[in-house]
Formats: sequence, C-alpha cells, structure tokens
Amino acid sequence: MAVRFCVTHEDNSTAARTGLLYTPHGVVETPVFMAVGTQATVKTMTPEEVREAGGQMILCNTYHLYLRPGHEVIREAGGLHRFMNWNGPILTDSGGFQVFSLAPLRRITEEGVAFRSHIDGSLHFFSPEKAVEVQMALGSDIAMVFDECTPYPCDYNYAKEAVMRTERWAVRCMAAHRREYQGIFGIVQGGVYRDLREKSAEGLLKLNFAGYAVGGLSVGEPKELMYEVLDCTVPLLPYDKPRYLMGVGSPDCLVEGVMRGIDMFDCVLPTRVARNGTALTRNGKIVVRNAEYARDFNPLEPGCGCYACRHYSRAYIRHLLKAGEVLGIRLTTIHNLHFTLNLMKEIREAISQGKMAEFGRNFLKSYLGE
Amino acid sequence: MAVRFCVTHEDNSTAARTGLLYTPHGVVETPVFMAVGTQATVKTMTPEEVREAGGQMILCNTYHLYLRPGHEVIREAGGLHRFMNWNGPILTDSGGFQVFSLAPLRRITEEGVAFRSHIDGSLHFFSPEKAVEVQMALGSDIAMVFDECTPYPCDYNYAKEAVMRTERWAVRCMAAHRREYQGIFGIVQGGVYRDLREKSAEGLLKLNFAGYAVGGLSVGEPKELMYEVLDCTVPLLPYDKPRYLMGVGSPDCLVEGVMRGIDMFDCVLPTRVARNGTALTRNGKIVVRNAEYARDFNPLEPGCGCYACRHYSRAYIRHLLKAGEVLGIRLTTIHNLHFTLNLMKEIREAISQGKMAEFGRNFLKSYLGE
Repeated sequence: MAVRFCVTHEDNSTAARTGLLYTPHGVVETPVFMAVGTQATVKTMTPEEVREAGGQMILCNTYHLYLRPGHEVIREAGGLHRFMNWNGPILTDSGGFQVFSLAPLRRITEEGVAFRSHIDGSLHFFSPEKAVEVQMALGSDIAMVFDECTPYPCDYNYAKEAVMRTERWAVRCMAAHRREYQGIFGIVQGGVYRDLREKSAEGLLKLNFAGYAVGGLSVGEPKELMYEVLDCTVPLLPYDKPRYLMGVGSPDCLVEGVMRGIDMFDCVLPTRVARNGTALTRNGKIVVRNAEYARDFNPLEPGCGCYACRHYSRAYIRHLLKAGEVLGIRLTTIHNLHFTLNLMKEIREAISQGKMAEFGRNFLKSYLGE
Repeated sequence: MAVRFCVTHEDNSTAARTGLLYTPHGVVETPVFMAVGTQATVKTMTPEEVREAGGQMILCNTYHLYLRPGHEVIREAGGLHRFMNWNGPILTDSGGFQVFSLAPLRRITEEGVAFRSHIDGSLHFFSPEKAVEVQMALGSDIAMVFDECTPYPCDYNYAKEAVMRTERWAVRCMAAHRREYQGIFGIVQGGVYRDLREKSAEGLLKLNFAGYAVGGLSVGEPKELMYEVLDCTVPLLPYDKPRYLMGVGSPDCLVEGVMRGIDMFDCVLPTRVARNGTALTRNGKIVVRNAEYARDFNPLEPGCGCYACRHYSRAYIRHLLKAGEVLGIRLTTIHNLHFTLNLMKEIREAISQGKMAEFGRNFLKSYLGE
C-alpha cells in the first residue's frame, strides 16, 4: 500500500504525537491541517499561495467535483492533481457528508443514496461502489469510505442504524477499491454514544484501513461534548494508523484535538471566515471589516510573517473588503490559512519537545482570552 | 519638474514612436498600457502579479478613492503607493469622467460639479482645485486636470462650451497644483469637431503641461470616427510631451492609436472582460465560459508564457468560472493583462526596428480575422 504512516514523537504530557504520512505525492508531517479545495481550488488561492502559507496537503470534495465539472472530465485531464495544478497530496471525502447536508430530496436505502443536485436539480445516485469509482477517477492520494453521517442531535436508534450501515458500506467500499497507490480510510460513526463508537471502531478495524477518521462531530454539538467523544473514541483507534478528525478547524479545537491524539484535520473555517472579513490572530478573531480599523495601519496580526501582513495594513484590507474587491478576501484568506498552518507547525514543535500541554494551555489562554 | 519625457525612436512607416517617461517612481517605456486599479487595486491581482504580467505603471481613479476610503485616509497611510503596495508609477485621473458618467444628480456650474455619491447618495462638490487637492493627497506621479468630458453624440455648441470650460478649469488646476514631484497633464476635448480640437489644444499648450491627453474618445463613437479624430488631434500636440489616449484598451485600438502617435493608454477592458469569462488571444477573443471548452485541455492561448497559460487548461478555467470560483477570474485576468502588456512590448520592438506598419497590419489581420 502506497499510503503509510509512522509516529515519530509522543508528547509526554498529553496524547499528542507527531508522525509522517507517506503518500504518492509526498510526505506529510502530522499533526496536519488540510485546507479545503471544495471545487478543485482552495477558494481565491493559487496552489503556490497555499504552499507558501505552509500547506502540505489539501482536501477536495467528491460530491462537488462529481456534479461539476464531472469526474470523467477530471480523469481525462489526467487526474485532479494535474487538473488543478496541485502536486502535493490530496484527500477526497466520499461525498457522503455533502449528500446528507447539501442535496435536497435524498432517499437512503441499503443500496445507497438517491439525491438531487443542489446546482440544477438533476437526479443522481451514490452507492459505496460509486463513491469509490469517482474517487479513483479523481486520483486522490487518500479516499474515504462512503458513510452515513448523522446530525446532532440524533437519537440512539438512528445513530445505531447509521453505524451498522456505515460498516456494511465500508465493506463494499473496500471490495470496490482497486487502486494500489490510493489509500482508503474508514470513518467511525456513533454520534455521542460511547458504545456505538466502540461498535463502529470494532467493525472497521477488522477491515484494516490505511487510516481512521472520527466522523459525525463538529455538526452542531457543544465543543465540550465533542472533546468528550474524542476522549472515548481516539483510544479505540490503532496506534500506528493516522487519526483524522473531519470538519474541524477552529484554532482552539485543533489544539484540543491534537492533545487527544488526532493527527489530521480539515475545515473551511480559515478560508470561509476570511470571506466574511474576519482574521484569525493569536489573541482571537478580529472583524477587520469593522469601522474601528479604517485608519489602523498595522498589519492584520503584528509580527505575522505571511504575505498579507508583510505588505498591507488593516486599513487597506478593510477598504478592499468594504469596496467588494477580491484582493481583500485574498489577503485575509492568505493570512488565515498561514495562521492555521503556522499553528500546526508550532504544535508539531511543541510535541517534539514534549511540551504540548504547556503550549496548549498558553495558546488557549491567549486565543480564547480566558 | 520630476516628470519628463523623451522620444527614443521614431517609426519610419507610421507616426508611432517609442519613448521614456521619467517619473518619481521609475522610468516607463512607451508606448505604455496602464492597467486600471480603480479602487487602489487592479481587480483580483496583487501588485507582484501586475508586475509579472509586464505592468510598468497603473492608473487609479480619484473619484472612487475620494469617496472610499477617502483621500485623507490614504494621505495618512503615506500615500497611494504605500497604501496599496505598488512601488511603480501611478497616474490618477481627475475624477471628471466618473462624476459625469457614474454619479447621479450632478449639477455643473462654472465653479465645479455638485454630485451625489453612487455608493451612499451623499452630496459632494468637485472643483478644479478640489480635484488637484485630492490627487496631491493621493500622491500619484501624474495628476490630470479636472475636465468636462462630453458624451457621444454631442452637439457642436455643447462641445464648444465644454472645451472653453475645460480650458478655464485647466488654468485653475495649474494654479492650485503645488507638488514639485507630481506631473500634471492637460486634456484636449472637442468631441468629433476638428476646429474645437484645435481650439482646445491651442489653449492648453500655453499652460505647458507635462503631457497631453486626448479626452472624450472611446465614449460610444464608432472606431473609425475615433481614428479620424486622432488623425487630426495628435499632430496638434507637442512632439516632446507624452500623448495619452484615455480609456482605450481594445487590442486593435491600441495598435491603431500607436500608429497615430499615441504614447499612453489605459482601459478596464482586459480586466473587465476577464470577469465575464472572455480571454484575449492573437486570434481574437474566446469566451472560455462556453461549453465547447469543457474538455479542452489546451491553455487559454497556446504558446503564451503567462502564469495562467503555463499551468492551467481552458477546461479547468471554464470549470472555475462556471462554479463561481475567484481563481477562474484571477487566471483569466492574468492572461488578459499579460496579453495586452506583451502586445505593447512587441509594439515597442516593432517601432525600434522601424516595422510598425507591418507589425500593425499583421496583428490586425490576425486579431480581427479580416
């Protein structure tokens, strides 16, 4: 199998660890944050800018790319890496989460999910086999199994049903997957129920996936509850496989996730809040669109080494955002992604030095202002 | 005066010439095309990208920057160059054209123009003195006089009145201007009337501006008529001063303008059509948004050396444009600006070799497909 993982350091004070994730498109240092390139582009950025911000690996959305431009177009282009000019590793999700959260009129059966396109209303059907076929056409480094992601709140019986179906679908995904180079990850479901998480992990571990995701979190539950679920779920996952917390990217959650033993994250948060005019800083978020920054000639975050902070003021970026200029969103996106990826770098350094607990405490105090 | 100009080559076959325009922020090779950065940003681009596309000098709009973020904010920031991180030359227009074309409820008197902001409806007043004061605060390398730009068609008497007023306003602009380093250009008006163009040029030449613009063209008149007006107007302008054709940027018009002795151009065309999904090529425009490019894995223009053409296919850019992704507009903008600036470079080479007529004939044949 072309996707491998090894732990390189364990933190003394927490469950955090650093590792190396080997993929066909290069080695990734973990814990890693993957920027999201939903439609084969990290919104507003070139691949070079993602790389300059510290990006090692990105995530693309199977659901979106299947609908537009279509996975066959991307296959013809020579795969997703060539199509979008990103030569680093790519993880594709399975489309499951989007089918369940974006597509109208979905109907779930044992066979798969019928849904309508959120773009043009056309009718489609995703089965585990189809989700794998599309991801093979895209040619990502890591594919995800097609799962049923439950919402929050979700009652026990429904969560249990989803766990059982996700396991049966995982078996079918594994059977349909025929790409040596492409790793495939399982997804542990089970909502907030400890015994269901155990059951889900137990079933998936038998299939010996290249890595394991914790799914069904960051779907509206309180953060404390997410941390509790992680506390009981992460220990169920194999030590020598990467552990991936899907859809998480708020700076405080990244720190908390790492301290609980998570190796991989993805989230639209840094790029999405940028488009709303919000910048992430060590002292929390600032809404740079606000009037108070109209004559503030400091960079978004004093001391930050990103392209935006080296050359532009809050006053200028605010002007661009207010005037609807794309460059304003670009600069804020660059800063937020740099901030997030730099945080991951500092986290890896802290773990290497066995100081993750101290680093986490200090960061959370500064970021949350508590 | 810090803004100077010298002719370096005269073409044998046409009225074209190359020159050097010296400004406080560097020397510009002419004929030059200035990309438009209306709101202190060339739409979607960083200054480095403008430079990489071949940009030497940009234009910013006084009307827009006066309204938002306000010229006082830019003055406090240390001027427009620092505010927007562009260290090359900047020309600012006077705001006249925008007041006459964008602002509602304008009222023209001898003193100046009262108008309402197109952003929030607030009431403002621009006089020649005010237009100069704002441009001094912006700190551009070249300022323009506050003129009355007539529309097309425009009757003789109104065009004559505008010529007279523009001349009186030019005198007031010159008197109000107090920046040694900043050059100031006059604007010849007169619509399509030869005797008014003569009258306008005669009056302005007495004021000894650092350069002269031909105004009131590219406002809806047929191209042939514009060329006729240029034929009779350019010879009225001093040989040793730069001649600037305002608002012109279609590739064929650039070539025709140069052959008639124009040294400077500005236009939103390359950046604006990019946002509509249109790419400029040597063989004319292509609408890359169109379905025919869905599986076209060629670059926007085969053989082009721009960043977009080196790394991305029409199929990818079309996908981005259809999906509403900013990167699609960015890549098309980069290409279009590179195309336009590369055309100017080829034009300068052709003039140096005394082959502008031949170059122009070949280019127009290829671009217009005639």
